[in-house]
Amino acid sequence: MDRRSFLRTSALGGTAAAASTLAAPAYAQGKRKLTMVTAWGRGLAGVFDAAQHTADTINAMSDGSLEIEIKAAGELVGAFEVFDAVTSGQADMYHAADYYFVSQHPGFAFFTSIPMGMTAQELHNWYYHGNGRKYHDSLGEIFGLKSFLAGNTGAQAGGWFRKEINGPEDFNGLKFRMPGLGGKALGYLGASVQNLPGSEVYQALASGAIDGTEWIGPWADEKAGFQEITKFFYTAGFHEPGAGLSLATNLDVFNSLSPAHQKMIEAASAFTNSWSLAQFLMNNGSALERLKAGGVKVLEFPDSVWDAFGEGTRQVYEEFMGDELFKEIYDDYTASMKASSGWLTVGEGAYRTQRDRVMG
Amino acid sequence: MDRRSFLRTSALGGTAAAASTLAAPAYAQGKRKLTMVTAWGRGLAGVFDAAQHTADTINAMSDGSLEIEIKAAGELVGAFEVFDAVTSGQADMYHAADYYFVSQHPGFAFFTSIPMGMTAQELHNWYYHGNGRKYHDSLGEIFGLKSFLAGNTGAQAGGWFRKEINGPEDFNGLKFRMPGLGGKALGYLGASVQNLPGSEVYQALASGAIDGTEWIGPWADEKAGFQEITKFFYTAGFHEPGAGLSLATNLDVFNSLSPAHQKMIEAASAFTNSWSLAQFLMNNGSALERLKAGGVKVLEFPDSVWDAFGEGTRQVYEEFMGDELFKEIYDDYTASMKASSGWLTVGEGAYRTQRDRVMG
Repeated sequence: MDRRSFLRTSALGGTAAAASTLAAPAYAQGKRKLTMVTAWGRGLAGVFDAAQHTADTINAMSDGSLEIEIKAAGELVGAFEVFDAVTSGQADMYHAADYYFVSQHPGFAFFTSIPMGMTAQELHNWYYHGNGRKYHDSLGEIFGLKSFLAGNTGAQAGGWFRKEINGPEDFNGLKFRMPGLGGKALGYLGASVQNLPGSEVYQALASGAIDGTEWIGPWADEKAGFQEITKFFYTAGFHEPGAGLSLATNLDVFNSLSPAHQKMIEAASAFTNSWSLAQFLMNNGSALERLKAGGVKVLEFPDSVWDAFGEGTRQVYEEFMGDELFKEIYDDYTASMKASSGWLTVGEGAYRTQRDRVMG
Repeated sequence: MDRRSFLRTSALGGTAAAASTLAAPAYAQGKRKLTMVTAWGRGLAGVFDAAQHTADTINAMSDGSLEIEIKAAGELVGAFEVFDAVTSGQADMYHAADYYFVSQHPGFAFFTSIPMGMTAQELHNWYYHGNGRKYHDSLGEIFGLKSFLAGNTGAQAGGWFRKEINGPEDFNGLKFRMPGLGGKALGYLGASVQNLPGSEVYQALASGAIDGTEWIGPWADEKAGFQEITKFFYTAGFHEPGAGLSLATNLDVFNSLSPAHQKMIEAASAFTNSWSLAQFLMNNGSALERLKAGGVKVLEFPDSVWDAFGEGTRQVYEEFMGDELFKEIYDDYTASMKASSGWLTVGEGAYRTQRDRVMG
């Protein structure tokens, strides 16, 4: 699994190769220009915005001494090729959802979202004041990356269907787009699960290559236009209860940066966490109203489907527990989730219940 | 209400005075050193940490070109004197909870928390993707401040009492510490409300000067030691459902900084928002367990008390609606809260209910 040897011996182009052969002080006086590849089509609502916000914040803070240039999916490499591009040194950093790379290591799923896992707030609790960052670094060291959470979509919607879902049997044979461990869990329900980049989902749905899809939530989904094709939209989903986005820099490139530039990347990413999550959450409500007004039937999955989601989820975790690092992260993540969710329930949760009751 | 004229004519010491008389480019080549005064005793759990994290992040990103030096409450000025110190130019910036300054303008309450108002997430939604930042600037322009949210405690606890609260009548005559508009609402229930800085609350409680207090939540309250004096702790409270902390810089000083340094202050503050909220939420659960184990009786207010909180809250808002800016912010804030809370309920809220039901 150690790909660093590949990194060091392959024929590399671009700044990352330069970074690993020049001593860091050589950069101290000059300007650095880094290429960020992304898993997002240019302008893709919310997710491309998060990449842009991170880059803009770094560029503004560095006063030109560190300049990030963004490449949308397809401009330098394809959406799902960003991981290889950065670990190989073809590009300097990627902005993506790390669960696109569970085939590299299943542990990457924790830094986007896992089925029946943490909400965005619980993820941030673990990341900044539990062991989350430490484990993101553990994965990064295997592949030659330095990663930071840099965006979050909030709890993702159950998704879009051509017909109503009345029980778990309705997933049998369904061709459905869902990445990460959630997709694997859905496979245990008999679905034919596909992983497609965001910019390819609409076409796949329109052509009938897939029967249904999840993407993000009301606002981003409306922008993608899924309501033009399918009319059944499910609100809460089990698969990504608070999906983090990541900014990952080639580790040699990162280590060649000054401590000030490194801190700018860290702080801009963390700023984007708040900024991005707020963007999704501020826009979802009005988008949901527009979808309803446009004839979309907005539904919740019945309990029997949630029970099946739970069963599929348990089977997925079983599947990966043989990987020592996966198990270590899973145990730590689960303990953190339990530790931080209790107060959220009795504090904020109880407050919201009373606010709604008393103030209407 | 325009205090800028005061600022310009008063006898000023310190860097802010220098900032307003020297042209900005004079600083371009040199180092800037700014003094941050805080409303927090040195090391006060969570809140002083947030001030420190913001300063440390700025200092690390600027590589010494912008250095923030923190003064705890009492080291330069008292906890509640930080507002005057910064608007007058005695200090360059403060880190505090803006609702300490509702006597300057009631609109400051929105940037900490208002009774029956937004949770932390709802506040961030409004701040970063609604009109929150704009209105923070509107208040700042009146007083000569540039402010950013820089920390959040999450939903604050109902607080500490010497005896059980069985109905709203138990607040009649109760000497209770609660700042901001929440405190004013409690006054309508007949409480004798006091506003004390965090570092003075323990002594006031121990001496009997107050009968009870709210501070933040299980973790920070345990560190403050209130469980040594009072044994009844109420979890959810109505008064501060997601209390923001603010970093406010003297506006002339801020305008004299380079755009890069300005962006560092903005990004470090926003980073601290996530970091600080996660710190409180990650620590509250285990602290609550320790408090219970130590003999504290952990309770929820009955519905009759919540109804009275609601009535007091309505009266407080009535009281301030005559102020045009307060009313404008209130209307915008309330509309944003409604717009962003709906999806949080059907998305994340419904998910958490199912996660708890299915996964246990």
